[in-house]
Amino acid sequence: MSSIWSSNIKLSLFGESHGTCVGVTIDGLPPGVVFNFAEIQTELNRRKPGNTCLTTQRSESDEFEILSGYFNDYTTGTPLTVIFKNHDTKSKDYSRLKEEFRPSHADFTGYVKYQGFHDFRGGGHFSARVTAPLVFTGAIAKQLLKIKGIEVCSRIKSIADISDIALSYTEDHRELLRNIQSKIILMVDGMSEELAKLKIEEMRNSGDSVGGKVECFIYGMPAGIGNPFFNSIESQLGSLLFSIPGVKGVEFGKGFEISKLRGTAANDIFYSEKDEIKTRTNHSGGIQGGISNGMPINLVVAFKPTASIFTEQESVNCHGEKIKLQLQGRHDPCIVLRAAVIVEAICAIGILDFML
Amino acid sequence: MSSIWSSNIKLSLFGESHGTCVGVTIDGLPPGVVFNFAEIQTELNRRKPGNTCLTTQRSESDEFEILSGYFNDYTTGTPLTVIFKNHDTKSKDYSRLKEEFRPSHADFTGYVKYQGFHDFRGGGHFSARVTAPLVFTGAIAKQLLKIKGIEVCSRIKSIADISDIALSYTEDHRELLRNIQSKIILMVDGMSEELAKLKIEEMRNSGDSVGGKVECFIYGMPAGIGNPFFNSIESQLGSLLFSIPGVKGVEFGKGFEISKLRGTAANDIFYSEKDEIKTRTNHSGGIQGGISNGMPINLVVAFKPTASIFTEQESVNCHGEKIKLQLQGRHDPCIVLRAAVIVEAICAIGILDFML
Amino acid sequence: MSSIWSSNIKLSLFGESHGTCVGVTIDGLPPGVVFNFAEIQTELNRRKPGNTCLTTQRSESDEFEILSGYFNDYTTGTPLTVIFKNHDTKSKDYSRLKEEFRPSHADFTGYVKYQGFHDFRGGGHFSARVTAPLVFTGAIAKQLLKIKGIEVCSRIKSIADISDIALSYTEDHRELLRNIQSKIILMVDGMSEELAKLKIEEMRNSGDSVGGKVECFIYGMPAGIGNPFFNSIESQLGSLLFSIPGVKGVEFGKGFEISKLRGTAANDIFYSEKDEIKTRTNHSGGIQGGISNGMPINLVVAFKPTASIFTEQESVNCHGEKIKLQLQGRHDPCIVLRAAVIVEAICAIGILDFML
Amino acid sequence: MSSIWSSNIKLSLFGESHGTCVGVTIDGLPPGVVFNFAEIQTELNRRKPGNTCLTTQRSESDEFEILSGYFNDYTTGTPLTVIFKNHDTKSKDYSRLKEEFRPSHADFTGYVKYQGFHDFRGGGHFSARVTAPLVFTGAIAKQLLKIKGIEVCSRIKSIADISDIALSYTEDHRELLRNIQSKIILMVDGMSEELAKLKIEEMRNSGDSVGGKVECFIYGMPAGIGNPFFNSIESQLGSLLFSIPGVKGVEFGKGFEISKLRGTAANDIFYSEKDEIKTRTNHSGGIQGGISNGMPINLVVAFKPTASIFTEQESVNCHGEKIKLQLQGRHDPCIVLRAAVIVEAICAIGILDFML
Repeated sequence: MSSIWSSNIKLSLFGESHGTCVGVTIDGLPPGVVFNFAEIQTELNRRKPGNTCLTTQRSESDEFEILSGYFNDYTTGTPLTVIFKNHDTKSKDYSRLKEEFRPSHADFTGYVKYQGFHDFRGGGHFSARVTAPLVFTGAIAKQLLKIKGIEVCSRIKSIADISDIALSYTEDHRELLRNIQSKIILMVDGMSEELAKLKIEEMRNSGDSVGGKVECFIYGMPAGIGNPFFNSIESQLGSLLFSIPGVKGVEFGKGFEISKLRGTAANDIFYSEKDEIKTRTNHSGGIQGGISNGMPINLVVAFKPTASIFTEQESVNCHGEKIKLQLQGRHDPCIVLRAAVIVEAICAIGILDFML
Repeated sequence: MSSIWSSNIKLSLFGESHGTCVGVTIDGLPPGVVFNFAEIQTELNRRKPGNTCLTTQRSESDEFEILSGYFNDYTTGTPLTVIFKNHDTKSKDYSRLKEEFRPSHADFTGYVKYQGFHDFRGGGHFSARVTAPLVFTGAIAKQLLKIKGIEVCSRIKSIADISDIALSYTEDHRELLRNIQSKIILMVDGMSEELAKLKIEEMRNSGDSVGGKVECFIYGMPAGIGNPFFNSIESQLGSLLFSIPGVKGVEFGKGFEISKLRGTAANDIFYSEKDEIKTRTNHSGGIQGGISNGMPINLVVAFKPTASIFTEQESVNCHGEKIKLQLQGRHDPCIVLRAAVIVEAICAIGILDFML
Repeated sequence: MSSIWSSNIKLSLFGESHGTCVGVTIDGLPPGVVFNFAEIQTELNRRKPGNTCLTTQRSESDEFEILSGYFNDYTTGTPLTVIFKNHDTKSKDYSRLKEEFRPSHADFTGYVKYQGFHDFRGGGHFSARVTAPLVFTGAIAKQLLKIKGIEVCSRIKSIADISDIALSYTEDHRELLRNIQSKIILMVDGMSEELAKLKIEEMRNSGDSVGGKVECFIYGMPAGIGNPFFNSIESQLGSLLFSIPGVKGVEFGKGFEISKLRGTAANDIFYSEKDEIKTRTNHSGGIQGGISNGMPINLVVAFKPTASIFTEQESVNCHGEKIKLQLQGRHDPCIVLRAAVIVEAICAIGILDFML
Repeated sequence: MSSIWSSNIKLSLFGESHGTCVGVTIDGLPPGVVFNFAEIQTELNRRKPGNTCLTTQRSESDEFEILSGYFNDYTTGTPLTVIFKNHDTKSKDYSRLKEEFRPSHADFTGYVKYQGFHDFRGGGHFSARVTAPLVFTGAIAKQLLKIKGIEVCSRIKSIADISDIALSYTEDHRELLRNIQSKIILMVDGMSEELAKLKIEEMRNSGDSVGGKVECFIYGMPAGIGNPFFNSIESQLGSLLFSIPGVKGVEFGKGFEISKLRGTAANDIFYSEKDEIKTRTNHSGGIQGGISNGMPINLVVAFKPTASIFTEQESVNCHGEKIKLQLQGRHDPCIVLRAAVIVEAICAIGILDFML
């Protein structure tokens, strides 16, 4: 298995950063769905490179072309394939990469696994550009979830060591989070946002990069969705989230912090309100025994700093010889800015899959 | 999907805490393997409740019975089924749970999902007892990995806010980690161990519980194993690790900390040593682009405090009525002590699956 | 993959003919189902060896034991495991088979695939005894289908060259087929039945065996179930039916005969009756484009003669040496008698899977 | 599941007959494979419509475009996507089909399943044009199998009631079958071929159609490949073969005929020759217990006559009203001529999958 995800919905990802296109086939969508193309484009724009001076200067149009599964303005119910053609590909930027391994990229591991035959240009199939089809899929998933009253929102929880304010896990922050969508840095607190901007600019100017965390909230989730063990909500979302390039950590609810708590503090006490069973705290992140309990689901995803930096680095080539690498090309000093929409997309896909 | 995991190896988990037995069918083992039963039992003993005053007093013998797939002292290559019969089940302890929801347990979510028909006794199919078959499977996986020169080790990284000393990600700690296996608390540092013991005793005495973290190291891993996207090493191990009851966070390499670093600090610089390509640091945890790079793989798993505590708690019953809960029964004040072997087992299964 | 079938329902088969037991884990059953144990036993008795002089003299009680997933007289919704313990195993009958290959059995292919480590006693995991858990599963599937108004019936279409009368594919033969269930040979026509009995007796007396065909009808199937291509009704049922030991052919509707027809004769003309769309003929067997059209589904399965015969046969052993084989043991001269209920079971499982 | 097949190789089919294109993503190919494009085109030409007066007059160029997974003249090892653009689409021919159901087509079942939203033009996703990507995949599979010494050949066994001569199952007919590849009708016997041609011409002239059977042989297969039960060779190939539009029956070895034989006649007697174990007859078709025995594998597939005929037919429309249908458009009077290469492709894919 590699680029196929097969559950109730099935996804088949394909394409390379500097090949003809990247794309996905989505199998399992219901028939008769009318796409909101404006919303799809809005989501894609959130991921698109080149839309701010804080992100990479590569300016892909991110225009998609639906090859199948959409007919007379409705989904057909048969496989939907969408592609994103690659236009602005400066492959010569990458010509040295055929033999030279960029630190913390997949150049070396790809070289070993594919015995030197992989498309090395711009990361090839490992490129973050392959997430464009995922964002497309996520936009559709969100649209289908909204009909069921479920909404997936996110924000940037931190950039480097600059953290946004904490948000309670029991309340509904939908409106708050919708309001920050137009920001370049999706933080609630203006001061943190400003500091983060400065940090990213500093990184860009010094040819460096920085990581961060994305927090995702799923509202309107009914209780009783998910499974124990191998197909728990955490397993399914965790598996999908760890598919996003650059993710090194995933936590649900109180996450790593909960390991420091006592049971008396960590347990979420049940109470009844208007015929609904709720919990006073939500350290479990809305999931108990792998199954939703009706409280908001929340999770945090840690992204490493962009591996592509513009200070000279030591490395080796495929002959094991020591080299000096001075990267050229266009890269994000902070992929987290563009990652929030991918995290939302992935969560929307994973949750929709449970609801079909 | 729920209790079946289906990759190159396929696992089918079954059973309930207070039913006839718990067990697993393992499909995909090679034929001709001689089990090291002493090692299997050692692994099971590490998970077994009741073997120290720091863990639950339930004394299951954890004796297993192989029902199929093992013939004339060899695996046959056809499905191997193993069961663990339940003997020491005090079901009356749980009789109230039919209608009452223990905080942060799966009682409520299971009630909703299974419409009240699930086996509520001792957590039923949600019980940590179902991990005994996983430890059995892990012991076999470890044995098969050892032939390929791969070893999975672990230690307790922290209990509550008491952390063991840090271990470098580039060095091989196999011997160190083997040496602590006989300890009750698998920490390297004696002082931390003592403090953790005191903390757990305090918790038990006060009817409370506490969480912690397990760190896992995989040594001897060749480069080039894994896949980009949906079947990356992180996706596969992440998915399996989030199947373990009580896990709320998983991170690889530098994990959540890496989100605070600059690219210049986070990138793992390649160098060549004796015809082998290595990295000077290993913040990536041995994985780049979802594929192993030949450095040790390492990961940390966060466990919540045992939800079963013995101080009175508020809750609701299935009629939505407010109740007071005073748990009876036998529980671990700190499941992390018994969790390390489960984390190892899960990692061994996930890695072996890539190697078949 | 081998003994796990993984769709909406997941089955994990295990066990060997002369080991501890055979069994299955069923994952994906809804919670709250009350089993009709009398019906399950009736179905099992239809498959059971030793219940007539026309079948093998091995007298297994075919008593099952549910290990998990059934609690307080209801399915729990979590994995249901059932085992059939092996009692009447005369393993010494098979001792020579360790090294000698019975013609048209899996002794040789199993020996090669499992490198000599498989359980050779009585066919081991290849044994038709492993179908007992499938019949159990089928009995449950039938019960769940009946609630949806769907019924799976069968009859023996032929034994050797003795054919039962033809049944129209457009009419509902439920009552007719129910009425023949008490017969030893499930044929409609009494004369064919008598001839078939004589044939089987002749085979038994001469130490020979004979094959036959089973025809299966699925009534009450709504239109619109199934899929094009890889998960068509024919693909799903075909795949499952070819899992039954001894099956060498599967056809739907007019099957092989349709290849001889002209389109004008083969096409099923649509007409409307009481707001329902039907077809005047049903050469398609109720399936068009892989999807049900609301007409009865019908299919025929061809079984080879029992490979175990009692006349001396030439063969080779695992050293490639020529040998003479004179089989001992107890075998059916005609497995088709016991196969009808297995075909029904498999079809019920396959169809239920589409309906969940 | 529907248009995704997921085993060691994974296929994701997409596209509609009169949409933008049809295509497939193949996941799981090894890296470093150089395609023989001449052979791929030869295979595609065998399936191509319009290349003889005996087949449909639609003249698709069947030119393919590789979108991903092939770089610098080698497979990369990451997903390979290929599309076939639709050029010669006369969609107005099909405009009436929006509401009218052609007999024995998927118009009605598709209408019900997809609630009227499916692409009805020329069968949409149900169209045999979707098999072009399968033939492409098969051509690659054949190339990879050839390296392992395995060859998949076929011939037309019968058209209507005109049968080609019988070929023994024990001998190797590779050369014979290669030699007939240039024929329009892939029959060995010249007389049968002539009769079949006349029959097909007669059908075309009378606006009728006719079915037939394809026989497939797999040579060079090592013993020990396959599995018992759900993933037997018969299950895997059966499932894939029943995915081909128009297939109504599949049989292995002696197939349906074996049901009429006695065990003494049906059993394949083992003997030893030059250190190889063989069978004197091969009624099992090279498969015992779901696993190859080293003898040639053979199977027969029954195709129904083309449902599209040009004589007026009665039918109903989606309002249940009686209509008269007089089909326009371009269709094969006998799809079997073009089906042989599809059967070969499917078998090559299914067998390669076992060998990876």
